[in-house]
Amino acid sequence: MAGNSFGGLLKLTSFGESHGPCIGGVLDGMPPRIPFDINFIQHGLDQRRPGRSTFHTPRTETDKIHILSGIYQGMTTGTPIAFQIFNENQRSADYGPYEQIFRPGHGDFSYYKKYGIWDTRGGGRASARETAVRVAAGQMALLGLRFFYPDIMINGAVIQIGPHTLQGSIDWNFAEGNDFFCPDPTTLTSWINALTHAKDNHTSLGAKIYVEAVGCPAGLGEPVYDKLDADLAKAMMSINAVKAVEIGDGVACVEAPQGFDEITSSGFMSNRSGGILAGISTGSAITCTLSLKPTSSTKQLRETIDVKGRSHRIDIEGRHDPCVGIRAVPIAKAMMSLTLLDHLLRWRSIQT
Amino acid sequence: MAGNSFGGLLKLTSFGESHGPCIGGVLDGMPPRIPFDINFIQHGLDQRRPGRSTFHTPRTETDKIHILSGIYQGMTTGTPIAFQIFNENQRSADYGPYEQIFRPGHGDFSYYKKYGIWDTRGGGRASARETAVRVAAGQMALLGLRFFYPDIMINGAVIQIGPHTLQGSIDWNFAEGNDFFCPDPTTLTSWINALTHAKDNHTSLGAKIYVEAVGCPAGLGEPVYDKLDADLAKAMMSINAVKAVEIGDGVACVEAPQGFDEITSSGFMSNRSGGILAGISTGSAITCTLSLKPTSSTKQLRETIDVKGRSHRIDIEGRHDPCVGIRAVPIAKAMMSLTLLDHLLRWRSIQT
Amino acid sequence: MAGNSFGGLLKLTSFGESHGPCIGGVLDGMPPRIPFDINFIQHGLDQRRPGRSTFHTPRTETDKIHILSGIYQGMTTGTPIAFQIFNENQRSADYGPYEQIFRPGHGDFSYYKKYGIWDTRGGGRASARETAVRVAAGQMALLGLRFFYPDIMINGAVIQIGPHTLQGSIDWNFAEGNDFFCPDPTTLTSWINALTHAKDNHTSLGAKIYVEAVGCPAGLGEPVYDKLDADLAKAMMSINAVKAVEIGDGVACVEAPQGFDEITSSGFMSNRSGGILAGISTGSAITCTLSLKPTSSTKQLRETIDVKGRSHRIDIEGRHDPCVGIRAVPIAKAMMSLTLLDHLLRWRSIQT
Amino acid sequence: MAGNSFGGLLKLTSFGESHGPCIGGVLDGMPPRIPFDINFIQHGLDQRRPGRSTFHTPRTETDKIHILSGIYQGMTTGTPIAFQIFNENQRSADYGPYEQIFRPGHGDFSYYKKYGIWDTRGGGRASARETAVRVAAGQMALLGLRFFYPDIMINGAVIQIGPHTLQGSIDWNFAEGNDFFCPDPTTLTSWINALTHAKDNHTSLGAKIYVEAVGCPAGLGEPVYDKLDADLAKAMMSINAVKAVEIGDGVACVEAPQGFDEITSSGFMSNRSGGILAGISTGSAITCTLSLKPTSSTKQLRETIDVKGRSHRIDIEGRHDPCVGIRAVPIAKAMMSLTLLDHLLRWRSIQT
Repeated sequence: MAGNSFGGLLKLTSFGESHGPCIGGVLDGMPPRIPFDINFIQHGLDQRRPGRSTFHTPRTETDKIHILSGIYQGMTTGTPIAFQIFNENQRSADYGPYEQIFRPGHGDFSYYKKYGIWDTRGGGRASARETAVRVAAGQMALLGLRFFYPDIMINGAVIQIGPHTLQGSIDWNFAEGNDFFCPDPTTLTSWINALTHAKDNHTSLGAKIYVEAVGCPAGLGEPVYDKLDADLAKAMMSINAVKAVEIGDGVACVEAPQGFDEITSSGFMSNRSGGILAGISTGSAITCTLSLKPTSSTKQLRETIDVKGRSHRIDIEGRHDPCVGIRAVPIAKAMMSLTLLDHLLRWRSIQT
Repeated sequence: MAGNSFGGLLKLTSFGESHGPCIGGVLDGMPPRIPFDINFIQHGLDQRRPGRSTFHTPRTETDKIHILSGIYQGMTTGTPIAFQIFNENQRSADYGPYEQIFRPGHGDFSYYKKYGIWDTRGGGRASARETAVRVAAGQMALLGLRFFYPDIMINGAVIQIGPHTLQGSIDWNFAEGNDFFCPDPTTLTSWINALTHAKDNHTSLGAKIYVEAVGCPAGLGEPVYDKLDADLAKAMMSINAVKAVEIGDGVACVEAPQGFDEITSSGFMSNRSGGILAGISTGSAITCTLSLKPTSSTKQLRETIDVKGRSHRIDIEGRHDPCVGIRAVPIAKAMMSLTLLDHLLRWRSIQT
Repeated sequence: MAGNSFGGLLKLTSFGESHGPCIGGVLDGMPPRIPFDINFIQHGLDQRRPGRSTFHTPRTETDKIHILSGIYQGMTTGTPIAFQIFNENQRSADYGPYEQIFRPGHGDFSYYKKYGIWDTRGGGRASARETAVRVAAGQMALLGLRFFYPDIMINGAVIQIGPHTLQGSIDWNFAEGNDFFCPDPTTLTSWINALTHAKDNHTSLGAKIYVEAVGCPAGLGEPVYDKLDADLAKAMMSINAVKAVEIGDGVACVEAPQGFDEITSSGFMSNRSGGILAGISTGSAITCTLSLKPTSSTKQLRETIDVKGRSHRIDIEGRHDPCVGIRAVPIAKAMMSLTLLDHLLRWRSIQT
Repeated sequence: MAGNSFGGLLKLTSFGESHGPCIGGVLDGMPPRIPFDINFIQHGLDQRRPGRSTFHTPRTETDKIHILSGIYQGMTTGTPIAFQIFNENQRSADYGPYEQIFRPGHGDFSYYKKYGIWDTRGGGRASARETAVRVAAGQMALLGLRFFYPDIMINGAVIQIGPHTLQGSIDWNFAEGNDFFCPDPTTLTSWINALTHAKDNHTSLGAKIYVEAVGCPAGLGEPVYDKLDADLAKAMMSINAVKAVEIGDGVACVEAPQGFDEITSSGFMSNRSGGILAGISTGSAITCTLSLKPTSSTKQLRETIDVKGRSHRIDIEGRHDPCVGIRAVPIAKAMMSLTLLDHLLRWRSIQT
């Protein structure tokens, strides 16, 4: 039961390898007659696109989206929306020497164990390049969410790089305007310094991402297994390099004196639950925090083996970000949008 | 698209309310001819059962399982295994006064917003009583896992209660032998003190749970959306009161110098990835940590409203644990077992 | 991927063997706040119940339904509705001699080939007794359909037994009032004669069933694979003994001069399409015809083998209907109701 | 819950409209390391391709398949296989006048009722052009089936056109070698005459198709809802213009003296069940018959309305086959292959 589809009523099926002709997806279940804005989709892709800054992998891709179906006269038709994004800047030669060697921290070992074969060029299917598909579909989902709830906002930012936490408060506009999705001007310099240091020393840094949905209606989520927080946890944990997902208070709830929010006639007095109670949204902001591990590929020598079990010491010279986290914000926002529209459609089906 | 089924090839469908005649489930997809051990199932239920200690809710239930189908001559037949567990100790009167008032931290508010009606007795469908169904099915899944991999072990323990972390190292046998699933004798006293204090002061504590699968084969997990870690995150986040799920290094990966494990011909040199690379198991231990919020229901007065929007100040006099975390270990182990067998069956289907 | 669940948004999970303690099901996805009428459900079961006439299997069952969850204050709550029906009149001894012998025309051979084990008592899981679960759930689905479209009618009748076709026209009230679901008084006598003859001669007869939904809205069906007619074909073909499913003109379309219906401002001029165009309902009556094979179990000697491959000549002395078709009408109506409500919920989710 | 995916473990997701840039699909769940033969796929497409004979729609398409992902070093990798087929010969102008008029017998009316919008060019999503996607994926599935069971054969033929049935016996090689998939030389002339007459008189004919799988193992099918015959019925009924699906004896079972097959130690004495008992394959040939309605689009004037409800009399001048049935054989074979491999993978997952 292959796992390349995401969602129940809104279903994204993704395909493509890092160094094949293209990546792409099919988004099935979009309601009909939703105005389609190709520029809005492309804008999302541009925010994830590699090569925008010196701290990104030097692989440059225009990531231009091509719509293959499902749109007619500028609107969705209710039929599947297929799209493709060509791979333009493959440099498979980068990966030649590692063809039969498992790069530590990558999927080479586990893909080989599972399938007995894997596309060794640039991570193949396991490459983070696949996340462009998520971003494209996520923007389509956001169009759908806004069709029903025009005021809904999906915000995201990096809130920690390595040990460097935010110094000030969150300014969403600022976050959109810099390559690090840093939401706080006073923090930006320290992050640039840390990343420069990591880059120069051929090491890498982890990151923490915060993403929220504001203006989302109460009622989304399907207990007891497809709870909204459960589906968000899956959505976020499926993003490359993510090792932890927290909802609302998250890990901090363990030491907190209480774990709930009192209610008044004008709403909840706090939002420790992260906008979800018993798996169903409450109308408060839905809040989620992700932790991403440092980029595994660096120029430092590592112990590993090849498919025959022979030992090697390798460094990975490919084109990689010193901190994968700084490109994860658009992806996390996309997974939030996909999850929410899916659950919105589920909820609409039973409204009486 | 109601969410009361869990899993792809191995599918658990759960039903029942806290104060209805029974709870139960249907486990579909179990391979045939697996020896069925009813005592093994019952043992799992006994470990989750309320009323075993003074720190548990005083609601006592025998939680005896009744098998309704799918077993013939002591073996699974490949047909659905249905089971029920009767509710014996309902005290709906406990809940009478709150019938139309939303208990803060509970699902009352969100269920009402979603469905316009909810079974107000003891949390109804949102009650943690439903987790007995998970435990029963999880034990069946463990029988299945052991049929294919006799040495597989699913271990679990509480590793933190409120601010109180483990003092010593993990002793799985010890964890099984006390009511707190505390894996370390030197820690137990401090936890008893903390829980006694919480109970006396009508407050409650959060907890952290660690669960692992040892002896699990490489190859489980279905990228890119049904990654093993993604499905585990969903499984764990769907447990009542869980607010964070971590795989391997988890949140700590953000500040860690690296996020990967070097490989030698005798195996991985570490297990920071938690036994999963690119969403597929590696053969190392699969490790997962959960954070659970403090019990929401205590005797302290809280602001809330009723279905008409009128304000109230209430305390919750029902029968509740001072720390829900101390009963979550068997549930987390069950969700681990269900997820692993599901993915094992998926993997078997494509082995060539 | 076991197949004991039916439907997408409205999902019935069924369990139970012919000679276990009970059969039952879990209906997940029913919208909340639909008035629940237990007598209406029971009435449906009574229509399918064995032992009502001399032409039914002499196995008598009261088939009383027990609701286990999902109903509160007389209404659905949106949580799963579980129910069970006890097996009261098992006579496993009837089947003793055949324990290891494959009864021709039954599932014994194929179940054994698939699972390596099967509950040999009365067909086990393959018994038509399971269809009581469908009828119960189908009545619940009909309550849901009528909640949204009060005038919707699901009608069904036997229209042929062996070579004996209807002599007159269809009178739905008459069909409800006799044990053969014969919709035409002038035909009834010939059928009684034919069935009596079959019974006396230890043979059996096939039957053709017609079922229709009147008052169903346009818009149901999800091209290109989950077309309404495709899902109906699956639903109907999954009923025991069904060997053919026709929509609208059905097989006759091959020799018909045309296959479509002209449209005027007051509606379609005919209904050869059976109310479905390109997989989506048109608002015309949805019409479906089933062909059921003669009962396989009769007292005539048949060649067969046992699990060791040894030859036997057996007759089947169990309690069986001379024509299984005469009990299939309520089942076909139930499958129609389940399919339609499922698709109605799907359609509601995308209405903009 | 949009319905553009087919299958459980082997899942085909299809996209594309008749007059968009391309049609295509994503086949997820193919086992890894299956040798991939692009010529074999293309051969299947060539058999379905329009414009091969004067009795086909004059629309010519090369139907060349482009593989986008999932193949590496000539083998499947276990990742999704995406493919596209460009639309080269769109003549939207043919459809201009009918843009807002519902063509009788087509999906225009029902698509409009469901979605409020539809791609009016050439049937849009409802066009039979989509079936090329099925054929391509079906050939891939057949590669998978033959990997596990090299001797499996999927055969298909037209067995009736209008009132003209087969005169002789079935010769599969002959069927492959003519444009009508006619399996009998003595019949071919009468069919050519009938089709010529239909074409000259601007009318159309229905057809009956027979398809079988020989060499398929026992054990496929998942009772009680995903029975093999139930899933085949869905698969076949989802093909454009199909109005009836029969398994084994099919409709004839109603008047047959019995409906089963006796068993000897050397196998079944007959195959009236069509290779399926209680929803599970027996190892005998799996046999299926489809009835397809006459092409709806002809040059004869028909009553219809437009989206505003205004009456019109139209004929359809587009490019159409006088008998859609003569192109349906490769499609039916493809749906058979997809269904069988899906069920083979399901069965493999539980083999113990």
